[in-house]
Amino acid sequence: MSKQRAILHEFESEQLESVFVGRRDHQARPTVLLVPTVMGVTDLEIGFGRQLVELGYNALVADVFGRHLRGADRDTMFGELTRLRSDRAALRRRMQSVLAVAQGLEEVNSDQIVVAGYCFGGQCALDLARSGADIAAAVSFHGLFDPPGLPPEKIKAKVVAFHGWDDPMVPPEKVVALGQELTEAGADWQIHAYGHVGHGFTNPHASTLQIDGVAYNALAAERSWTSFIDLLEELFASHQ
Amino acid sequence: MSKQRAILHEFESEQLESVFVGRRDHQARPTVLLVPTVMGVTDLEIGFGRQLVELGYNALVADVFGRHLRGADRDTMFGELTRLRSDRAALRRRMQSVLAVAQGLEEVNSDQIVVAGYCFGGQCALDLARSGADIAAAVSFHGLFDPPGLPPEKIKAKVVAFHGWDDPMVPPEKVVALGQELTEAGADWQIHAYGHVGHGFTNPHASTLQIDGVAYNALAAERSWTSFIDLLEELFASHQ
Repeated sequence: MSKQRAILHEFESEQLESVFVGRRDHQARPTVLLVPTVMGVTDLEIGFGRQLVELGYNALVADVFGRHLRGADRDTMFGELTRLRSDRAALRRRMQSVLAVAQGLEEVNSDQIVVAGYCFGGQCALDLARSGADIAAAVSFHGLFDPPGLPPEKIKAKVVAFHGWDDPMVPPEKVVALGQELTEAGADWQIHAYGHVGHGFTNPHASTLQIDGVAYNALAAERSWTSFIDLLEELFASHQ
Repeated sequence: MSKQRAILHEFESEQLESVFVGRRDHQARPTVLLVPTVMGVTDLEIGFGRQLVELGYNALVADVFGRHLRGADRDTMFGELTRLRSDRAALRRRMQSVLAVAQGLEEVNSDQIVVAGYCFGGQCALDLARSGADIAAAVSFHGLFDPPGLPPEKIKAKVVAFHGWDDPMVPPEKVVALGQELTEAGADWQIHAYGHVGHGFTNPHASTLQIDGVAYNALAAERSWTSFIDLLEELFASHQ
């Protein structure tokens, strides 16, 4: 692992510090930018990154909150979440900064970047796709779907959302709205919905947040990961 | 291939004639009951069956219309479709007859039957699951979702629906309604929705039907097949 820094010029004091998980062999590979939940970079995302490395990809665990908040407590992080979600244009610029860091790494093939996020990170991934970014795909695991309220761009990325149907933060009408939004934006999109599954289903520690409807679901975690790997193979089958 | 007959006692003149595609080696295997579109048993479903056999499964291409209609013209088949869909209790009994034929075959493991249908056949697969049938899974490829209007049973089968979001026969409100129905019936369910995809997307000849919104989509065909195989592996990983 190595740390990769981006300085946000609009907030000079906030330096993002993403974590590269991959081979340092001077070889550009397809790379997944993993965007964490509200709790920021944790061992969970680094573990996902290691699984990807075993499959021949590289990973960069994205820092969206800034290194001064690494390991901060739950209340601090939720406060920051609220602040970041209140200015989606600024959030988009943060994601663009993280993407620029990835694109600048020797071990990242800039034409083969997938951005995959969890919960709030899923929204970040979608927001980057919505900006018209040149990424191969944007993937949301139990992410938030609310549109950013910015002028719509043509979406170039393939979009896949893995969604728990009982997610209290994303009721069925928001699923339908996302389908319509992505269709209008011209995206090649998929939504995989899972019954009896709530928010945070990929996170074995989700229930420690003690929020109704937020819980780990081993079967949905496995299914979404399998489909995610299917997507990577669809995109990059010839890379190995 | 060999033909397997079921006589419908309520319509003595209508004999169903399903087609077994698999190894005749006296060994019970996980088996997929493939339920065709409105056009009945064709080379398309037999070809899907052969792909499954290559993966170590057996297949039975289900006859729902009766052998007297094998190869009938489009108008005849659509007429029959309307008749069958108008009596969902009778349709359920037809599916139960086909399932009984499968369960009686030496090469079918009765505890490892998946029912997968296309278009109208997708509805047949869902209807069998809705009956509370002891099947491992029911899978719908661009199937119809309308509930049968029969007393609800607890669904034991895992349910997966692969759905084109632009399917003119299944608008978003029917997707939401299916999610709710399957949740209430206690099913372990998934819906995979594909953007910019219509009805009939697995069928390379779909556009010959000349119906608006009915068209082949190679990418959705490939994605749904890959996810279908993922499901079979989830269910039967240890069988080989």
